Amino acid sequence: MAFGWIDEQAQARRRAGLVRTLRPRAADSPLLDLASNDYLGLARHPEVIKGATEAARRWGGGSTGSRLVTGTTELHGELERELAAFCGFEAALVFSSGYAANLAAVTALAPHGSLLVSDAGNHASLIDGCRLARGTTQVVAHADHEAVRKALGTHEGPAVAVSDTVFSVDGDAAPLAELASACRAHGAGLVVDDAHGLGVLGSGGRGAPYAAGLAGAPDVVATVTLSKSLGSQGGAVLGPAHVIDHLVNAARTFIFDTGLAPAAVGAALAALRLLRREPERAERARTVAADLHARLTAEGHETVRPDAAVVSVRAPSPEQAVRWAADCRAAGVVVGCFRPPSVPDGISRLRLTARADLTDGQVEHAVRAIGETRP
Amino acid sequence: MAFGWIDEQAQARRRAGLVRTLRPRAADSPLLDLASNDYLGLARHPEVIKGATEAARRWGGGSTGSRLVTGTTELHGELERELAAFCGFEAALVFSSGYAANLAAVTALAPHGSLLVSDAGNHASLIDGCRLARGTTQVVAHADHEAVRKALGTHEGPAVAVSDTVFSVDGDAAPLAELASACRAHGAGLVVDDAHGLGVLGSGGRGAPYAAGLAGAPDVVATVTLSKSLGSQGGAVLGPAHVIDHLVNAARTFIFDTGLAPAAVGAALAALRLLRREPERAERARTVAADLHARLTAEGHETVRPDAAVVSVRAPSPEQAVRWAADCRAAGVVVGCFRPPSVPDGISRLRLTARADLTDGQVEHAVRAIGETRP
Ligand SMILES: Cc1ncc(COP(=O)(O)O)c(C=O)c1O
Ligand SMILES: Cc1ncc(COP(=O)(O)O)c(C=O)c1O
Repeated sequence: MAFGWIDEQAQARRRAGLVRTLRPRAADSPLLDLASNDYLGLARHPEVIKGATEAARRWGGGSTGSRLVTGTTELHGELERELAAFCGFEAALVFSSGYAANLAAVTALAPHGSLLVSDAGNHASLIDGCRLARGTTQVVAHADHEAVRKALGTHEGPAVAVSDTVFSVDGDAAPLAELASACRAHGAGLVVDDAHGLGVLGSGGRGAPYAAGLAGAPDVVATVTLSKSLGSQGGAVLGPAHVIDHLVNAARTFIFDTGLAPAAVGAALAALRLLRREPERAERARTVAADLHARLTAEGHETVRPDAAVVSVRAPSPEQAVRWAADCRAAGVVVGCFRPPSVPDGISRLRLTARADLTDGQVEHAVRAIGETRP
Repeated sequence: MAFGWIDEQAQARRRAGLVRTLRPRAADSPLLDLASNDYLGLARHPEVIKGATEAARRWGGGSTGSRLVTGTTELHGELERELAAFCGFEAALVFSSGYAANLAAVTALAPHGSLLVSDAGNHASLIDGCRLARGTTQVVAHADHEAVRKALGTHEGPAVAVSDTVFSVDGDAAPLAELASACRAHGAGLVVDDAHGLGVLGSGGRGAPYAAGLAGAPDVVATVTLSKSLGSQGGAVLGPAHVIDHLVNAARTFIFDTGLAPAAVGAALAALRLLRREPERAERARTVAADLHARLTAEGHETVRPDAAVVSVRAPSPEQAVRWAADCRAAGVVVGCFRPPSVPDGISRLRLTARADLTDGQVEHAVRAIGETRP
């Protein structure tokens, strides 16, 4: 049987307690959400919804083609200009997802004969980018800028270091300034994925590269998602104009993919304008995260100090992590549950996200639920 | 300089006349569109727009997380059930793009030690899927089922043949029945990308696998896009339920990607329901394509007989293809222009798409513009 081998894998997964199942959510769920990446609470903001609906009405349900054929509307251009300006970069290019943006940036900036130095904790999309790139990848220890420097020193020719700015599992930050200095010492480029930094870090949520003084630098390229703080879908690459032009000409996930749907462009643009007008939202997300962390630590949970809006709590085992998350849900609180093979170190965690629109009462409710259901 | 090598490549591109630039389109363009993949003319249909706006209003601008965390709404489940039923498959899984769906299907169905047999004319996303897969890829000549049979015969263990159903450049169809029989002779799976078949081929637009009697077979997996005939954005994998469950557990572009935005889900669902109610749209797209081809051939253009709704016209050189397309635009008709490196055989073409909503007068206008601007 053609796909018989799948059933053996499925059985092994069942035995290990690692089966994943989809759980469709209702539009009017009464549960408290500490699992989504809607950091600023904008996904259901009336202005963001209006951005989506007006764009769909004006431009239609889809962009109808590749960005290079019919898939670029004036709205895509507007979003690209405003996003670049906001984050402090010369130019931006919008993709159908953050995943696609990462594949594009990494593959297009690592030609044959180049070296990619990749943090061991990087997101799957950066890893897949490294796998697809024509260059050679060297994986270095997590958040170890000395290891990056050493790796770059072994290579002649084009090189890039690739890192999340905020790692998605534990929410810890990369040493951006040190990474940039390691890259500069070797004439290498720096590609950073600011999926969890945009909207949360930097003045008014301008992101981690901006906060580190790296936005707009000629040797720095950032990727972002429109699907987290901006409450929409899609991704973008930010960088020098000639790099963006290069992506237009060389990035396969740009050239051979349908342009982002107008509604998603409109929603992201509305969210961006809202954030520009209400910059305090970014700080509030960080405050909620710090508060969540402080309270959980005070109750004896093993948590990582959050550098952005992700708070991770260690669980004793995959099975207990799953049960813990289920018990939290039964107590009215939805939390993320990360376990093998989605965690690089094999350690299972609850993953909590702080949202700018969580009230202190809601944070308290969440902390209580997590404490009472502790395995 | 970190990205200095980019400028050399840009110069080479300029010298070869292969520079690509983005051309944002206006919402109220008076140009006749023969370039988009909006085969059924549904992207701006009021019901499709309503599907998008109502979904955004009810569910928000984004899905807020991975499909396995908060990114699966009840609407995603609805679309998956209706899409699977319409195309004749047991189950479906929706992705943020057709590109992501292809990466998922190909990588998750080709484990370590397996063989992938891939048509030389396959879409970039299938090729990238092969590159990312743990198995070994053997590329075979275009549309050559005997070569597929031979390649499969050289291998023990899991194997899949991978092919577009309708090839995106020339619009020619793959020999699906023969591919399936080659796969069956060797116990291999068949993975087909029906991006350009759904909505156009098969009874009422149920797609190429349905037309070939392969829908729902235990050894056949199809991928589709929501971004072409369905006028939205996104993609899906269709197949046996245990294969879909496997993707939920193993496909990186499913697990590590934000769920498709509600507006895109709603638009695709509305388009699917419309197509179910008005099955004649599929046939009309094929009729328009045949008509376009007949008229162009009668005028002496070198075209490929269309198996679906894509009509390709040979151009003498990349430069002349670009000029031809520009002259068509000046004459009020937008056509696609495919040239290296986006064409596997190095031959430049105009690429025309037939839409079900094109009138005979519009087809005539297009043919006249293409003839009058011929290099
Ligand atoms: C660090 C990181 N990069 C990239 C992505 C992919 O972005 P998207 O979901 O918009 O495709 C994600 C999450 O989904 C992420 O956590
Ligand atoms: C044959 C084929 N497969 C897959 C895709 C990718 O689908 P999407 O644009 O929805 O990502 C395309 C075009 O974009 C295509 O032509």
